[in-house]
Amino acid sequence: MRLDTDPYLSRYATRVTGMSASEIRALFAVASRPEVVSFAGGMPATDALDMAAVEDVVSSVIRDAGALALQYGGGQGRPELREHLVEVMHHEEVPGHADDLIVTVGGQQALELIAKCFIDDGDVVLAEGPTYVGGIGALKSHRAEVRHIPVDDQGMDVDLLEDALNELRREGRKAKYVYTIPNHQNPAGVSMSLARRHRLAELAEAHDLLLLEDNPYGLLDFAGRIEPSLRSLVPDRVVYVGTMSKLFAPGVRTGWIAAPGPIRDKLVLLREAADLCPSNLTQMIVERWLATQPWQDQIKRFTELYREKAEVMLAALEKEMPEGVHWTTPAGAFYIWLTVPAGIDTSDLLAKAVGRRVAYVPGRGFYADGAGGAQARLCFSYPELERIPEGVARLGELLHDELELVRAVFGDDAPSPDPRPSGPATGVGG
Amino acid sequence: MRLDTDPYLSRYATRVTGMSASEIRALFAVASRPEVVSFAGGMPATDALDMAAVEDVVSSVIRDAGALALQYGGGQGRPELREHLVEVMHHEEVPGHADDLIVTVGGQQALELIAKCFIDDGDVVLAEGPTYVGGIGALKSHRAEVRHIPVDDQGMDVDLLEDALNELRREGRKAKYVYTIPNHQNPAGVSMSLARRHRLAELAEAHDLLLLEDNPYGLLDFAGRIEPSLRSLVPDRVVYVGTMSKLFAPGVRTGWIAAPGPIRDKLVLLREAADLCPSNLTQMIVERWLATQPWQDQIKRFTELYREKAEVMLAALEKEMPEGVHWTTPAGAFYIWLTVPAGIDTSDLLAKAVGRRVAYVPGRGFYADGAGGAQARLCFSYPELERIPEGVARLGELLHDELELVRAVFGDDAPSPDPRPSGPATGVGG
Repeated sequence: MRLDTDPYLSRYATRVTGMSASEIRALFAVASRPEVVSFAGGMPATDALDMAAVEDVVSSVIRDAGALALQYGGGQGRPELREHLVEVMHHEEVPGHADDLIVTVGGQQALELIAKCFIDDGDVVLAEGPTYVGGIGALKSHRAEVRHIPVDDQGMDVDLLEDALNELRREGRKAKYVYTIPNHQNPAGVSMSLARRHRLAELAEAHDLLLLEDNPYGLLDFAGRIEPSLRSLVPDRVVYVGTMSKLFAPGVRTGWIAAPGPIRDKLVLLREAADLCPSNLTQMIVERWLATQPWQDQIKRFTELYREKAEVMLAALEKEMPEGVHWTTPAGAFYIWLTVPAGIDTSDLLAKAVGRRVAYVPGRGFYADGAGGAQARLCFSYPELERIPEGVARLGELLHDELELVRAVFGDDAPSPDPRPSGPATGVGG
Repeated sequence: MRLDTDPYLSRYATRVTGMSASEIRALFAVASRPEVVSFAGGMPATDALDMAAVEDVVSSVIRDAGALALQYGGGQGRPELREHLVEVMHHEEVPGHADDLIVTVGGQQALELIAKCFIDDGDVVLAEGPTYVGGIGALKSHRAEVRHIPVDDQGMDVDLLEDALNELRREGRKAKYVYTIPNHQNPAGVSMSLARRHRLAELAEAHDLLLLEDNPYGLLDFAGRIEPSLRSLVPDRVVYVGTMSKLFAPGVRTGWIAAPGPIRDKLVLLREAADLCPSNLTQMIVERWLATQPWQDQIKRFTELYREKAEVMLAALEKEMPEGVHWTTPAGAFYIWLTVPAGIDTSDLLAKAVGRRVAYVPGRGFYADGAGGAQARLCFSYPELERIPEGVARLGELLHDELELVRAVFGDDAPSPDPRPSGPATGVGG
């Protein structure tokens, strides 16, 4: 069963291309055709779930406790589910207690509630550059000023974070928080090194900083490695966000926040104003999944599949990409971050790519400031394994043709697509 | 299967009583005991659902389309579900097209997104007084100024609305919108008369007003009557909110907004920033419920049950309440609105009531401005039919005792619990 359309593509396309809504709809109509290989949506391979087990879980929830599952619940989420989520956190070496957790509608609602809790118009938030498009969306919808801290293959460059903090201090301002995805970052596909985690924790203490640690992918390391969470290093300074979307299924819309008590209480009130309560039904499905099914084996199955897909995509990139194209080498999760040579703008190129039956997300989607024109996110988790080489080949061919055109017009002086000099701020090594 | 706690009670209690969080937790621990009859939570009787049919629906969704149901979806909601919801609207004589709809996490998310879309700090919204506590919560979380328009047994007093509009005009201000629940209003249990609907539509045209029509209960009229929706009278001026919470089940967290195109587009972007997308799983469950089950018969079954419970509660009130207590007579849905004599404050009384094993929501929960101290909402939809007389008897006994105390202290000059003179603004006839 495939999606009719890729729900991510339209959102990204609207934000980062100059296309009108009707042009985007037309692009979409093409992009959702089965012959297009989409590396756009950051979607897990839900078809790798044990569907008989899921069916058993959902029907037993109704059979055993239907009236409760179909009723309203409390705003903080079911205590039983929160206990199970604490267990999931412990597998990631993230400390937590069920009382500290708020069950949210996926990780996105967590990011939104935290933004609503902390941000007044124009407040500064520091975030990795590039970073998760939905994180930027939540911040912008509350009119935050997002300043990006460049990412390299060791994750967020913490020295540059320190520079940004000092710069803010000179301006007499203070960041409301630092937003980071330390593990297998979306979209860069890199993780923060151990040394940088410790340095970030020190900076948090020294600058009285709050950290927003967003961790959807921590258990999806290809080698099963777990790095210490920021929450384990400076618990009182971290608001932690988790989600079952990639560990079980996005369709249950179950994420959570773990926050220090006073923040938690304020977030519960905001969540009640936002949508009263999470669904008892989906909460009880997740509870029963975690209580009765070998959920860790399922994560291993996902991770093995993603590792295989990543290898296939990396081999195809090696084979198909023209000289001057660079990419990251992921050690887990979903994403490869591609950097194209000067003269090519990935936003402008998207329509042509879809015309050649391959889709990606333009890099500008992952910056609040217009950077990322030379980058693209390729997601390998969702497309079928055997179609990945063909999609990469189409993209490679397109880039070959474009580069030929650029060289014919500009020679060796092709312009950079970014409004500022290219450098670590707009890409990661790889 | 009963709820462990009444999720509404804590929210209301926090807002309208002077109790600390720990006092409220203690109150709760008592209120959730099985011996307490709770008229607090506005919850449907989910135990009246055909659970075998629900189980069949949920398991067939996973069996037939599990990978899709468990995946991400689009931010506007599934087109297939929106088609079905349009059909539900047609049963209420509400015009609509699937393109105009946005599927939300219950009606509450609809109210939140609309507030976020329209409200800047201090903007004025006109709302019925009393009105839905969650509607006030959404408005306050965006720092709106809520001005109440009194309600009587014909619904919102539209003449007083006109006065408020003229007053705003004199102040050089304009209401962002008028929030109304025309059918079987929460908490007053009254509906807007036909004449007033027409008059409200005229006022909307004359004052260039936007109306927020919140309609959770339109199909729950005890006699099966349907009044014309505001959306049918002035479609371009109405943002309409519906929900399946009372027509099917709150646990599926499925509501919707029907809005004119430009508003809809903005709301979809806000929803994506808020939580990406509604759950495919719960959407497909609702779709299949509406497509394969006799959902209108189920609504008839609910309505018949609620009518019976309302009659039992009305008879018990007649029998048990002391002189000077008044209440509304609902023609549908969930609620009776009680007004107590001068000298009694329903917020102060709540702890005593719970001590006597009966719970309600103090009237102050339904006003943004501290009014409602002489009122209480009694919800009859959720408690078991046979326990309603006993709960009302406990409340009646408490009020008898309190009135005796008031008379002993104040004679006939008992103080009003409201900070302003009592009158139509703080109660409805009945």
